Amino acid sequence: MRHSNLDWRIVLVRPRNPLNIGAAARAMANFGLRELVAVDPFAPTWREARESAVGAGPVIESARAVPTLLDAVGDATTVLGTTTGERRQLDRVPLSLPQLAPWLRRRKARGRAALLFGSEKTGLSNEDLGRCHALLRIPTSADCPSMNLGQAVAVCAYELARAGLLGVQTPPARSAPSDAADLEALEHVFERTAQMLDAVGYLKPKGRNATLLKLRRLLMDLELTSSDVRILGGVVAQVQWKLEQNLQREQK
Amino acid sequence: MRHSNLDWRIVLVRPRNPLNIGAAARAMANFGLRELVAVDPFAPTWREARESAVGAGPVIESARAVPTLLDAVGDATTVLGTTTGERRQLDRVPLSLPQLAPWLRRRKARGRAALLFGSEKTGLSNEDLGRCHALLRIPTSADCPSMNLGQAVAVCAYELARAGLLGVQTPPARSAPSDAADLEALEHVFERTAQMLDAVGYLKPKGRNATLLKLRRLLMDLELTSSDVRILGGVVAQVQWKLEQNLQREQK
Repeated sequence: MRHSNLDWRIVLVRPRNPLNIGAAARAMANFGLRELVAVDPFAPTWREARESAVGAGPVIESARAVPTLLDAVGDATTVLGTTTGERRQLDRVPLSLPQLAPWLRRRKARGRAALLFGSEKTGLSNEDLGRCHALLRIPTSADCPSMNLGQAVAVCAYELARAGLLGVQTPPARSAPSDAADLEALEHVFERTAQMLDAVGYLKPKGRNATLLKLRRLLMDLELTSSDVRILGGVVAQVQWKLEQNLQREQK
Repeated sequence: MRHSNLDWRIVLVRPRNPLNIGAAARAMANFGLRELVAVDPFAPTWREARESAVGAGPVIESARAVPTLLDAVGDATTVLGTTTGERRQLDRVPLSLPQLAPWLRRRKARGRAALLFGSEKTGLSNEDLGRCHALLRIPTSADCPSMNLGQAVAVCAYELARAGLLGVQTPPARSAPSDAADLEALEHVFERTAQMLDAVGYLKPKGRNATLLKLRRLLMDLELTSSDVRILGGVVAQVQWKLEQNLQREQK
């Protein structure tokens, strides 16, 4: 289920290190997010931010700095504030990041969604959090709850993409290996293998069927590709050829 | 379904920047991963790595550098190599990161699992990839496929935790807001609200029931907590008190 109805904006509130703005931009570009806003950045220098925004040129070029949070999220219908939930009494229990998709589905959210990240040291203020429709917590370990800013953006961007929340922005999902060998090819190589095993005396008359069944199961479990099967078939064919050659030589 | 049978090790192969080793350590600590190995690091200085390993002391203190990949993964039963799949002809189609959990389940993997990340610039070599049981691809955008090393580790660590692959290491999942108001509390505040609305003349005799039904629906949809309901009840009670006071004053 996709939410192409939501346009996502990443908002960094009072980021202190320009390199982190660039790192956030790169993580965004990695997952097809485009809109980045910095609220009252400590050092509003985009030159440094560009350094760490490898491959994220369009994101950083179109990024904006605004003076207040309201300037950044005034047009948003869904404002989400990230928090470790460690330092302060929160007025709400945060959603765990994997719960975001079902929450948005229940809420039938549309329009602009803003995802807020606080300053590196202090996170979002209580005032910032009060402007959020929901708080969001990356389910980190209690021993080391606080994430690096760029890494937190990366994890959230990944989750948005994974959960299908980025609509058309989502990169096409790669399918599982699609050149899995078909059954006919497997059967063919299995038949040749059985002949070979007969030829080398591996298969004893007693228990022959049970052994073949076990081998067939093994062959299926390997999840071979067409290419694997061609290679395996080639090996077996070569062994058979050699065995026949030896046989012919003996018979001479 | 948990895989406490797998012990995870993060392996950085020929990392060039010590700050990235520290960043990887921090991301690991965030999700309860403990074992970090660097293969032939370009600049094997742990001092710099410690700088960026905020809160990840135990991970970085127990980290090791080894000369070859085999030294790092010789004891592993499952070796996974991360790749963007962009630069070279791969011999296998990589698993997309969210496919990892089902793949491990099918494989009934046990023992030591090693997750490999290549050098910042060049990724894992074909020789490295040849040592892997499966290749793993973070599903990044085609426009900007290559991730920052620390961010890639963070995303993978999050996915391992999210998918329940870290066994007992997984931090306890936070539940959704559990102090949702019960129906009795909602009914109570609804009744008082209806009284108040009657008192202020909001409810016209015609359509009264339809309006109340709509309001009741709204109240349910808000997903109020017990605390919200107490506040709301307090507001309504206060309004009622004021209305009654005014009424008494008029009657005097």
